[in-house]
Amino acid sequence: LTTPGKELAADIGERRLIERIHERLPPAPASLVVGIGDDAAVAALEPGTLQVLTTDALVEGVHFDRRFSSCRDIGFKALAVNISDIAAMGGASRLALLSLMLPDGITTADLDALVDGVAELAKVVGVTVAGGNVSRSPGPLVVDVALVGTVKRRRILRRNGGKPGDVLYVSGSVGSATAGLGWLRAQARDAEALPSDPGLAECVVRHRRPEPRARLGSLLGRTRAASACTDLSDGLAAAVRGIALASGAGARVIAAEIPIQDAASTWLTSHDMDPMLVSMTGGEDYELLFSVPKRTAGRLKTVRRQAPAVQITRIGMLTDDSCLVVERNGRLEPLPEGFHHF
Amino acid sequence: LTTPGKELAADIGERRLIERIHERLPPAPASLVVGIGDDAAVAALEPGTLQVLTTDALVEGVHFDRRFSSCRDIGFKALAVNISDIAAMGGASRLALLSLMLPDGITTADLDALVDGVAELAKVVGVTVAGGNVSRSPGPLVVDVALVGTVKRRRILRRNGGKPGDVLYVSGSVGSATAGLGWLRAQARDAEALPSDPGLAECVVRHRRPEPRARLGSLLGRTRAASACTDLSDGLAAAVRGIALASGAGARVIAAEIPIQDAASTWLTSHDMDPMLVSMTGGEDYELLFSVPKRTAGRLKTVRRQAPAVQITRIGMLTDDSCLVVERNGRLEPLPEGFHHF
Repeated sequence: LTTPGKELAADIGERRLIERIHERLPPAPASLVVGIGDDAAVAALEPGTLQVLTTDALVEGVHFDRRFSSCRDIGFKALAVNISDIAAMGGASRLALLSLMLPDGITTADLDALVDGVAELAKVVGVTVAGGNVSRSPGPLVVDVALVGTVKRRRILRRNGGKPGDVLYVSGSVGSATAGLGWLRAQARDAEALPSDPGLAECVVRHRRPEPRARLGSLLGRTRAASACTDLSDGLAAAVRGIALASGAGARVIAAEIPIQDAASTWLTSHDMDPMLVSMTGGEDYELLFSVPKRTAGRLKTVRRQAPAVQITRIGMLTDDSCLVVERNGRLEPLPEGFHHF
Repeated sequence: LTTPGKELAADIGERRLIERIHERLPPAPASLVVGIGDDAAVAALEPGTLQVLTTDALVEGVHFDRRFSSCRDIGFKALAVNISDIAAMGGASRLALLSLMLPDGITTADLDALVDGVAELAKVVGVTVAGGNVSRSPGPLVVDVALVGTVKRRRILRRNGGKPGDVLYVSGSVGSATAGLGWLRAQARDAEALPSDPGLAECVVRHRRPEPRARLGSLLGRTRAASACTDLSDGLAAAVRGIALASGAGARVIAAEIPIQDAASTWLTSHDMDPMLVSMTGGEDYELLFSVPKRTAGRLKTVRRQAPAVQITRIGMLTDDSCLVVERNGRLEPLPEGFHHF
């Protein structure tokens, strides 16, 4: 047994860490519409307008390896993971603050590349880098982004709006980032290396430069097609669990319906990994998982029409029990645990 | 000669680093009222309301030493340095995002203490911790805060509003944090240690838990007493230079007028340091430096009346040449260089 307070923070798990932090903070005022525990916070700083706020850091040796990703990729991804959180709330990303902790070995060319990566994605999504901070790091390179967006009150996509019977959909494909990272760990010589197989190359690019679903999140909020939404930063299982628990529902996922790219599936299988399990537990697919009630199925058609390039796949539903299960080969299995960044 | 791009980012200095980043970013839209280069950014996310945004990180081994500061102090200070930036813009701090990078050795008691320090100051100033992120760190403990506040357009205190003839004022006292850190480096056994001399103890507390001038900044903005304002995070010389350069003016500081606490002065002198030079170049006094035109001198009286506990000292003026000078013992010397975090 460990003395209370003497256990290591790293050992208690991310969710309990966040709960622990949350408990020690003073109660939030009513102007905080969505507080700690969702993809991003929503606040009404002034009556009538709402801000969505999030922060997410990429830490060298934890979230990236400079042998596998260029500085440009790292900058791109640092902004991407934050945009994904704002999109998962139905918000539009607007202002970024860029906080850099630079080890002594970083050259000005590295820094330029990093900023170019941020700027490239910022331009596409319409985000302004409003400010930031640079500091020396005696350890890893850290790229910490804080992102502020806007959302209309009726368009907020929380995790807790799902109801039993709502259908679960996922955007794009799942498991690709893990396959891409697996290839990099096994093969890569440098941060520009790509496999010759185009499908697998796509997986590597997905790991290096995930494209957040900014437009889809915004459409889901605007049309009010989705009852709940979250992103897949910690894997599909964590996302399903997140929506189900917050909504007070159970969930059933049909394994055979999970959209896994052929190249990812082939690579994972040939390396003794179960593609279904990887898609459930592997993090870093910055796709969206969302629930759609029967009465808004027509609105989902509108979303599909307005975002024809995004694949949207039905993978299961919310249920009226408290079970979290995967149906596979006709049998029910418990939903796997998610990916733990911590 | 170094090959272009191959020089180390740490070698080119913080100002050039920030300029370099700024140059690579796309031009900011008109909704960004104040962009990169001031104490904080100001943006109009929606018509009619303005947000002030800033981010500042405390990195172990760069900004703090866990032998000298408790985790509670570190949490307090991480929020304080951000509040200081918002205050220097005339804004009111409202929402914080707390991004923590935790080394493996951090215990849950350390984390609790850190959050308690944040919460303590948040409560006093009326800041809500809206969200954040926890991540593992393979190196230092990092506490990165992003802070969002509000400000009315006519109340924004920029650095560039000064005019020749405006009087320069500084709040509180200068050089105390450096004296406090000096004592800690020479004497401290643990993170709770304090000198027996009460004045010097105040200096140590100033290093560990600086109290940002939230109310003064807000009053200076509201009364429109100040033409320009900045905080003293990088020392008095850097602050004077910041306002003078941005305002296109020169500045003359009267050395004998700089408010230095007796205990700080005594300790510094007895350790062969020049208190005036330390007050100029030592960072981490989170006081405000501001300029006041003759026509708003009456408003400054209102500010003094409304914040009677804050000492406000006239230390010099902005001039119509481009010289940055200190008048000392009847002679003019060039303004020293400021403190470099980087």
